[in-house]
Amino acid sequence: MLQRMSTLFLRTLREDPADAEVASHRLLVRAGYVRRAAPGIYSWLPVGWQVLRNVERVVREEMERSGAQEVHFPALLPREPYEATGRWTEYGENLFRLHDRKGGDYLLGPTHEEMFTLLVKDLYSSYKDLPLSLFQIQNKYRDEARPRAGILRGREFVMKDSYSFDVDDAGLQVSYDSHRVAYQRIFERLGLDYVIVSAVSGAMGGSASEEFLAPCEAGEDTFVRCTSCDYAANTEAVRTPVPPALDTSAAPASRVVDTPSTPSIATLVDLLNATDDLRRGDREWTAADTLKNVVVTLVHPDGTREPLVVGVPGDREVDAKRLEAAVSPAEVEAFTDEDFAKHPALVRGYIGPGALGEQSASGIRYLVDPRVVEGSEWVTGADETGKHVVHLVAGRDFTANGTIEAAEVREGDPCPVDGAPLTIARGIEIGHIFQLGRKYADALGLKVLDANGKQVTVTMGSYGIGVSRAVAAIAEQTSDELGLVWPREVAPADVHVVATGKDASVFDEAERLATGLEAAGRRVLLDDRRGVSPGVKFKDAELLGVPTIVVVGKGLATGVVELRDRRTGEKQEIAVEGAVEAVAAASAS
Amino acid sequence: MLQRMSTLFLRTLREDPADAEVASHRLLVRAGYVRRAAPGIYSWLPVGWQVLRNVERVVREEMERSGAQEVHFPALLPREPYEATGRWTEYGENLFRLHDRKGGDYLLGPTHEEMFTLLVKDLYSSYKDLPLSLFQIQNKYRDEARPRAGILRGREFVMKDSYSFDVDDAGLQVSYDSHRVAYQRIFERLGLDYVIVSAVSGAMGGSASEEFLAPCEAGEDTFVRCTSCDYAANTEAVRTPVPPALDTSAAPASRVVDTPSTPSIATLVDLLNATDDLRRGDREWTAADTLKNVVVTLVHPDGTREPLVVGVPGDREVDAKRLEAAVSPAEVEAFTDEDFAKHPALVRGYIGPGALGEQSASGIRYLVDPRVVEGSEWVTGADETGKHVVHLVAGRDFTANGTIEAAEVREGDPCPVDGAPLTIARGIEIGHIFQLGRKYADALGLKVLDANGKQVTVTMGSYGIGVSRAVAAIAEQTSDELGLVWPREVAPADVHVVATGKDASVFDEAERLATGLEAAGRRVLLDDRRGVSPGVKFKDAELLGVPTIVVVGKGLATGVVELRDRRTGEKQEIAVEGAVEAVAAASAS
Repeated sequence: MLQRMSTLFLRTLREDPADAEVASHRLLVRAGYVRRAAPGIYSWLPVGWQVLRNVERVVREEMERSGAQEVHFPALLPREPYEATGRWTEYGENLFRLHDRKGGDYLLGPTHEEMFTLLVKDLYSSYKDLPLSLFQIQNKYRDEARPRAGILRGREFVMKDSYSFDVDDAGLQVSYDSHRVAYQRIFERLGLDYVIVSAVSGAMGGSASEEFLAPCEAGEDTFVRCTSCDYAANTEAVRTPVPPALDTSAAPASRVVDTPSTPSIATLVDLLNATDDLRRGDREWTAADTLKNVVVTLVHPDGTREPLVVGVPGDREVDAKRLEAAVSPAEVEAFTDEDFAKHPALVRGYIGPGALGEQSASGIRYLVDPRVVEGSEWVTGADETGKHVVHLVAGRDFTANGTIEAAEVREGDPCPVDGAPLTIARGIEIGHIFQLGRKYADALGLKVLDANGKQVTVTMGSYGIGVSRAVAAIAEQTSDELGLVWPREVAPADVHVVATGKDASVFDEAERLATGLEAAGRRVLLDDRRGVSPGVKFKDAELLGVPTIVVVGKGLATGVVELRDRRTGEKQEIAVEGAVEAVAAASAS
Repeated sequence: MLQRMSTLFLRTLREDPADAEVASHRLLVRAGYVRRAAPGIYSWLPVGWQVLRNVERVVREEMERSGAQEVHFPALLPREPYEATGRWTEYGENLFRLHDRKGGDYLLGPTHEEMFTLLVKDLYSSYKDLPLSLFQIQNKYRDEARPRAGILRGREFVMKDSYSFDVDDAGLQVSYDSHRVAYQRIFERLGLDYVIVSAVSGAMGGSASEEFLAPCEAGEDTFVRCTSCDYAANTEAVRTPVPPALDTSAAPASRVVDTPSTPSIATLVDLLNATDDLRRGDREWTAADTLKNVVVTLVHPDGTREPLVVGVPGDREVDAKRLEAAVSPAEVEAFTDEDFAKHPALVRGYIGPGALGEQSASGIRYLVDPRVVEGSEWVTGADETGKHVVHLVAGRDFTANGTIEAAEVREGDPCPVDGAPLTIARGIEIGHIFQLGRKYADALGLKVLDANGKQVTVTMGSYGIGVSRAVAAIAEQTSDELGLVWPREVAPADVHVVATGKDASVFDEAERLATGLEAAGRRVLLDDRRGVSPGVKFKDAELLGVPTIVVVGKGLATGVVELRDRRTGEKQEIAVEGAVEAVAAASAS
């Protein structure tokens, strides 16, 4: 259907919206694709809605091609199934909860594992019914603490979620791989540059999990890539290579030393290097020799609170997101003055392994960085203000309750696969695939009879694509300083025909060209506005980002129109005679 | 895409669901189209989702053809705009309300007048921008007190809502008429039998309004049709023809009479006819001579409560829905013992006009049926237990505060247009078109500059189609005792190919036929299940309701397959040779 700028419900803005931090947000609002209705909640205007529906179409086609069947669940869901799996509580404040008129508890679905599990349980009962993959494309809801960046992280957003059901682990692997391939096809068709990274599964539970990230500065996810092998991982999922255990026999005995006026690790290290009987002969002390113990409060899903001490090499910070992912579904809160008062064993600024772990009087849990291997030697707090311990050897002088991946990851850190340096980049999470396993099937009793007539619990996968977010990710990756630049498959039109000037003949010719292109199967946006200057029309065309632009104007006098490629900026004059065929060829998919 | 029963996520049920009252609910659940997730909240299974999407497609195509542009608003909406128009309160318990994590008030959109008004205000400012029609197809939410009949009246449902914006009333009429035509096209394409009736606009405000009703027994709406002219109206909107004012000069003076032991109107009338000095010479007293005064409590949107007395001829009941529509947005509650105690002027069972109206000491409002014209003479309560008044003449002995359309409408009542008898039927409301006028534009300040550079308030229309409800309405109107019978345009497939028996050749031939039909552009459902009896397959095909059924079975031995028309039940044998072409022709749209 021919769209006309003269009647299209669209107004472009010359100014950036005040709250826009990233390019996609700025441009999608300025070009009239979306408008904010409330924080993190957006309305889609005609051209925006067309782009979103184009993305949906690609997702639907590839999901169907992979054999998945489309269904549609409600967004308004009863509490009970989410109570059964614990997610009613685990989701915390991220879940929109409400009551109906009878006081019943409901939620707005963040994802639908529970509902799919129950539906399959309702319909299926035999291994012969499996494998099964179901998907839906639907509004999802999460009450984000900090909705930001327009549709990049909204509170109401469109998601494709799918779920696979298999009788055994080998089947789950096949379903998972099939989704992986479908996702690759989808993101390729959408014109997205993407990376597949290892991920942790967070509140979803389950084991294997990978994310599809669209690298770009506006992304909220940080990921690493090996400079040598194909290892790539979300920062939260980066595994620290564990150094081999060391021979501790030659290490000096640990001893407590006075370390006055050492408010920071740097001053502590300086003091050690400047003090005769502490100085080391072979090499200077560095921050990496110290063990920094950071205490936080864990809030478990059942509401219980627990102090947790995390030990990391002193040259690294604790990464809040890695820590959160490592302790999930528990949440992390700051350890307050009040908390210190309740736990006198924890001496602020001087927490040492001596006060920690199962063997200690405090019983406070102590988890250390994987680099704190048996035999490694550390300088750390002595549980007394103004004092540290040196030559404290892991395994000899203290034992932690376990390890934790919570230390920051740095550019150049060794790859866990081949030891080559890692690089760090940012990306937008556009897809996520999980091997859920039996967590939901167990909680909700989804079993089938196997070939031997025995009841077995079904194993599941859960797979998501941020459909509305993909629109923003494409805009981030493809836009330039002039505006949006849509890949043809998702663009609101194939060709933007711009009529410039005042001559009726220009408008007639533009109309003829537009109609001819429509007849040739191209989707056309025709700028037929009268009394709007060519400059404004060109700026609007650049902002709107339709891939092929045709300008009908002064050239008409000499029998030519101008063909522009929005992405490359290339311009060429083509004869009016045969222009329909030439433009149709230039704008073919 | 070829769908196979062997892998399709579908299970038919032999038994009706326990909670199903109507055919569409029973059959859509039994045939595996929908499943209940919570009261009034349904999940759509693959074949159901296909039917819903087919209906959506028809609606979208005809809305676009009418020039309306598609947009998409959030379902989760902020309170403020709905507060500005009063609907936050007026919707009462029908509105799902919730808080976000910061305590902000939100609602799940029941319709979107406010949001569209604000968006147009944001983008447009001149009469040159108008007319404009926008639509969306979206999940809507209403916390119905009695969700029933499956998807016929759900709490989460799919609706097409659209809004028109015009600079003047003449423009609104054009936009309204254009929607009316689009709706006629839509319901015709959907294969629905429908009636357009006058309606009242209820909580929407506004003036002219019509409903599209699909006549059927399961419908919740009652409507009348004139047996002579084309008058048709929703029961709530039926206008009572007003008899001419009467000459009161000859009427006897009113007088209070003792009427002991007359608990009902029938006993009262009997007493009057049996008592010498009350009996009338010319004709007997009938219930129609009495004026029944019914008291209710009105609850206004601001929460204030008010007693209201409604006077109707004693041979008619007060119709609760007509009363509710007449007093909307106020709600009606029963008048309790406690209420009677608070208003001693109201004598239960003997309420008379003397205690009512502005001139009375009580000041209680009194609204009467339009038949209570000036000069009409009535028997009614005397505001004293055991006593009635006779010969009470309207206008002479009492004056009501106004009239109200609250009396029941009966088969045979006179048409307000030509006086011919009305007939009554039931229907499902599938569409509703309103001339909203300036209510929302006024409340939210939507003005544009007119041709003279003067600010004028925009006039709006609001138009809805129950998309998910239309699926149920089609099922109600077209199904038979064997199952669903879809019109081709909405059916989940054009042809249902059933392979029966055990011979591999049967399955091969069915496969060949299905593939050929797909290549010919038909949507095919292939029953390729092994080990399922022909009887079960036939029953499933009848239940599922695909319009054309082809049975590949025993006939193959003699070179024929059977072609069945699901609706008419007609069967014919056709040669396997050329079967693709024959079936494709039989299943053409």
